[in-house]
Amino acid sequence: MITVLKKGTTQAQMEHLIEWLKARNLDVHISHGHDYTILGLIGDTSKVDMELLSSLDIVESVQRVSGPYKQCNRQFHPEDTVISVGNAKIGGGNFCMIAGPCSVETEAQIIEVAQKVKQAGADILRGGAFKPRTSPYDFQGLGAEGIRLLLEAKKATGLPIVTEIMSVQYLDLFADIDIIQVGARNMQNFDLLKELGKTDKPILLKRGLANTLKEFLMSAEYIMSEGNQNVILCERGIRTFDTYARNTLDLTAVPVLHELSHLPVIVDPSHATGKVHLVPPMAMAAVACGADGVMVEVHNDPIHALCDGAQSLKPEQFAVLAEKMRTVRKAVTQ
Amino acid sequence: MITVLKKGTTQAQMEHLIEWLKARNLDVHISHGHDYTILGLIGDTSKVDMELLSSLDIVESVQRVSGPYKQCNRQFHPEDTVISVGNAKIGGGNFCMIAGPCSVETEAQIIEVAQKVKQAGADILRGGAFKPRTSPYDFQGLGAEGIRLLLEAKKATGLPIVTEIMSVQYLDLFADIDIIQVGARNMQNFDLLKELGKTDKPILLKRGLANTLKEFLMSAEYIMSEGNQNVILCERGIRTFDTYARNTLDLTAVPVLHELSHLPVIVDPSHATGKVHLVPPMAMAAVACGADGVMVEVHNDPIHALCDGAQSLKPEQFAVLAEKMRTVRKAVTQ
Amino acid sequence: MITVLKKGTTQAQMEHLIEWLKARNLDVHISHGHDYTILGLIGDTSKVDMELLSSLDIVESVQRVSGPYKQCNRQFHPEDTVISVGNAKIGGGNFCMIAGPCSVETEAQIIEVAQKVKQAGADILRGGAFKPRTSPYDFQGLGAEGIRLLLEAKKATGLPIVTEIMSVQYLDLFADIDIIQVGARNMQNFDLLKELGKTDKPILLKRGLANTLKEFLMSAEYIMSEGNQNVILCERGIRTFDTYARNTLDLTAVPVLHELSHLPVIVDPSHATGKVHLVPPMAMAAVACGADGVMVEVHNDPIHALCDGAQSLKPEQFAVLAEKMRTVRKAVTQ
Amino acid sequence: MITVLKKGTTQAQMEHLIEWLKARNLDVHISHGHDYTILGLIGDTSKVDMELLSSLDIVESVQRVSGPYKQCNRQFHPEDTVISVGNAKIGGGNFCMIAGPCSVETEAQIIEVAQKVKQAGADILRGGAFKPRTSPYDFQGLGAEGIRLLLEAKKATGLPIVTEIMSVQYLDLFADIDIIQVGARNMQNFDLLKELGKTDKPILLKRGLANTLKEFLMSAEYIMSEGNQNVILCERGIRTFDTYARNTLDLTAVPVLHELSHLPVIVDPSHATGKVHLVPPMAMAAVACGADGVMVEVHNDPIHALCDGAQSLKPEQFAVLAEKMRTVRKAVTQ
Repeated sequence: MITVLKKGTTQAQMEHLIEWLKARNLDVHISHGHDYTILGLIGDTSKVDMELLSSLDIVESVQRVSGPYKQCNRQFHPEDTVISVGNAKIGGGNFCMIAGPCSVETEAQIIEVAQKVKQAGADILRGGAFKPRTSPYDFQGLGAEGIRLLLEAKKATGLPIVTEIMSVQYLDLFADIDIIQVGARNMQNFDLLKELGKTDKPILLKRGLANTLKEFLMSAEYIMSEGNQNVILCERGIRTFDTYARNTLDLTAVPVLHELSHLPVIVDPSHATGKVHLVPPMAMAAVACGADGVMVEVHNDPIHALCDGAQSLKPEQFAVLAEKMRTVRKAVTQ
Repeated sequence: MITVLKKGTTQAQMEHLIEWLKARNLDVHISHGHDYTILGLIGDTSKVDMELLSSLDIVESVQRVSGPYKQCNRQFHPEDTVISVGNAKIGGGNFCMIAGPCSVETEAQIIEVAQKVKQAGADILRGGAFKPRTSPYDFQGLGAEGIRLLLEAKKATGLPIVTEIMSVQYLDLFADIDIIQVGARNMQNFDLLKELGKTDKPILLKRGLANTLKEFLMSAEYIMSEGNQNVILCERGIRTFDTYARNTLDLTAVPVLHELSHLPVIVDPSHATGKVHLVPPMAMAAVACGADGVMVEVHNDPIHALCDGAQSLKPEQFAVLAEKMRTVRKAVTQ
Repeated sequence: MITVLKKGTTQAQMEHLIEWLKARNLDVHISHGHDYTILGLIGDTSKVDMELLSSLDIVESVQRVSGPYKQCNRQFHPEDTVISVGNAKIGGGNFCMIAGPCSVETEAQIIEVAQKVKQAGADILRGGAFKPRTSPYDFQGLGAEGIRLLLEAKKATGLPIVTEIMSVQYLDLFADIDIIQVGARNMQNFDLLKELGKTDKPILLKRGLANTLKEFLMSAEYIMSEGNQNVILCERGIRTFDTYARNTLDLTAVPVLHELSHLPVIVDPSHATGKVHLVPPMAMAAVACGADGVMVEVHNDPIHALCDGAQSLKPEQFAVLAEKMRTVRKAVTQ
Repeated sequence: MITVLKKGTTQAQMEHLIEWLKARNLDVHISHGHDYTILGLIGDTSKVDMELLSSLDIVESVQRVSGPYKQCNRQFHPEDTVISVGNAKIGGGNFCMIAGPCSVETEAQIIEVAQKVKQAGADILRGGAFKPRTSPYDFQGLGAEGIRLLLEAKKATGLPIVTEIMSVQYLDLFADIDIIQVGARNMQNFDLLKELGKTDKPILLKRGLANTLKEFLMSAEYIMSEGNQNVILCERGIRTFDTYARNTLDLTAVPVLHELSHLPVIVDPSHATGKVHLVPPMAMAAVACGADGVMVEVHNDPIHALCDGAQSLKPEQFAVLAEKMRTVRKAVTQ
């Protein structure tokens, strides 16, 4: 960590600060320039409060050199994390397709979709039981009944299940779910992250709409610091000024996250774009830049879907896309 | 609500959609143009899922005319909401100053700050007991003990207290707190909002870093739709590309929120800017554009503060600012 | 174009507005709702000033249905534009690789790079002679001498040349250049666009860092409305809150621009990311989502490059990438 | 300037880089940490290409300590710049009101507005002759005739004139104009900035929609580095995700620019918000946070204005606002 002191900082102020830093078990290297003084802080800086430091009157700026994340940092854990659920593997050179409807509606619907996406090559079934909606008047999902239907679909097809949790109070309902998803709006719901960190379930953590990649990794670190090492990172679009698509899919996040962390990285082009016809090109782009998996909405009857229906591919469209994704994956990894 | 149908939509598709809309108790006015057809939807459109509609293949675009928020909408409730806690009133022509440290540290600290900000004219004491921090390794607040110390400060000074809740599981601890704050990162933690909507406590809701004003109002609506009408809106900076200050304080939100809603609107320049010397000018700007209150961090010993210390004014700096804010308030309201 | 009138608009005000609209040769369809009145404007709305309309006191909102761009609008020109320079073709199912150094430095440098990228399969040589730099103290390019050296490289290899213009006063120097580039910062330098519209040179127009796709198309329209139909659109990253890469590459722009316009769309991953190791994955992603070409910085001696050097691949790295791009292109188009 | 070298940089690579830096007349202080090496660069770093440096493979990050701007840097020029035109003074404790229509339309219009805003206390008349418009089909201003009419209004009232230039080819027309405005879209039109730097006219430079404050100052530096020290900075809103107002007015820019630079800072709430009713509160907020002036659109017949009409106040509304701004100014400076 580098701290630059302002011109005009007195010797006493500087010594006061250095004392404070040393009390935090850091070594301090001092480098005097003409206009400023640089302090190089050596040691475990992950516990230094960067915002506090940078807000001090005498401090010009503070810069971290190593990320404050430890457990998800590739520097300390060079080997790719591989997460196994059922027959599916995520990360470490495996490519994983997750597919299913935005919302679970009926037993017939979820079982039919599950069977069709399995046939098309999907490895994992997704489906929403608890739905985060901007408006309290929009459909909020089937809740516990949705979880039950997902488990029926698992029984019928053998596909592992991923579904979203919105509050710790429902954790018991997720006992037989294979992967628990944390949505973009809850990426910094730290109490939820900590509780999930105490379980041993794989967690699919979605990036917040306005969160930097370092904040994203810090949220993974919240989970991991409580003991649960099974985190899957999911890029799903960020909020920018352009409004043609629902959000701006930040695919550069894929190689950057792979560089900074050993955790698997997947991409959700359905929520990012919000439009069916943009899903296939962006899914293929995700594969081409190295994503470990793609999560796609598939619905057997998009017109009547209760929620986000028409950002869903039909099963036969998904089958075509799945084939193309495999071809692109082969092209980039061969 | 206006729905524009794409060129090439068949009569059958259109009729199918209109039937779906009518089943939702809406009247539909059809207007045929050369290149497109416009459907005007009349009735209670707050329950129509705009994302679903706009993602249909035949739909070019969807636009809401009335906001989907009802209870916080000034159109339906023209009178300003006024929230009273102790001797303080917020909204409806009253101006309110909230001050206090970022984090509660010790009994001596919080009582001293409380006494000093009261003397300078503050109406309400703020202080953090549960702290949302980007890193799991940063100081997370004193928790329950912090709440206890805040209540001691209330006893000593008579100032009402506002402090942040991060999870519904701690709600019991807030029984004697006067205003419960929901932080920016939890603005769309819908389960938390719903639970707070079942209480009768005033809720100070902070705007999320990447949330539009309409989403902000929808989050207020989540609280109000459960019965609790006592919501205070707080602008605290949004995330943009510029990085000089911590966030970009969006003061235009103040007159816009006043136009769209009857709820009181306050501004937090301390968290928005992250720098002490920017707090006074931005606090005065907030007053000048009509904010119903300003929330400022004040600390008796900024250098040693455990958290966000140096974005805090010293009590004597706050006293000068408080005097200036009163002068500006008088200038704009006379 | 749809105009929604506010509740409370008087009959006289509405008639006044309708008269004003009819004077602009528009038909107006009126649709009365309970809370608002909708005007559907039929006719050539491209000449209606949307900002003016939306700023009127009685107007709630204005929404365009057809884009205000005509000549670059696929709706009116369904066939892909194909631009030919030398042996290269851009658009209409052709895939084009553009490569070369950020800045032209010496004759030896540019000829060597040109020969090597040609050998690796590049179709067009890029190189900067006039360089837009944030600081007046940074290297500004060789100017006219740079153009001369590029033409030497063209002579030596037969590769067509693309290079950036920054001011109309230098237009004469570009007489033998094959494609003139307009940089991101000049995307809305309307006087420059108009002058280029009077030439018959292909124009490679880069998207501005904070411009929507509709504004991007309007800038193409500026060129085309003066007569020059040969415009190539180039996505090169937008400015967002994340700072890990230099900008955020918005690949979704590729399928969206293809949907809205018949113009070819290429991608520049070198400027978007600013980091060599991110160029190959993002170049492949661009190919996978359907880009008509990719423009990549290649330098024979990155360490010593005068400008942006190390965002450049070495020629041998480019050769590997070119091979991979061809494989991915084949996978997505087969 | 601080350069952090990556773990794994060899001694030879580091020495190569240091040699390159020393050839640029910089002293280099080396500080070895466990995981990284810090180079502190001492000397005139304004000429070091930061992007080049940061893109080198061995470089983890680069950070400037002093801004690369020299002539507009308050550190080197602590005294406020005061710009005088006619009887008006801008900067250095003076408060300046600039008012007038978006576009010049007729002699009667501009003279009437000029007289009325003068009466209300305006110091300078604004009016657009050359208009930058997103669409080539929108009204582009009266051009040379507009300049002539502005000069008539100057003759009639004695008010100095500010109007926008869009291309260097029209510079001769601005001979009798008092202040030349550079619009937001041309903030990085470096050739235009350099030409204006060779004149001695005051330049009112508007901030680009997606430009950081440091880039804004670098554009001022472009003008100043050619000899012209008379630059006025104007905040006019930045582009963010929120779309209620036209742009997001970044008022924190006012105290920050005052801290970093000695140049005067004014605010344009009319273009920032795009809505008449938001102009007064934001104008007052600008005054309250210390702006040296405010530029407001005023039109004698908003309904019929050719361009941006209804973001204009009527003269009598401006008179009320002007009085209020004076009161707030007095409150904050007393």
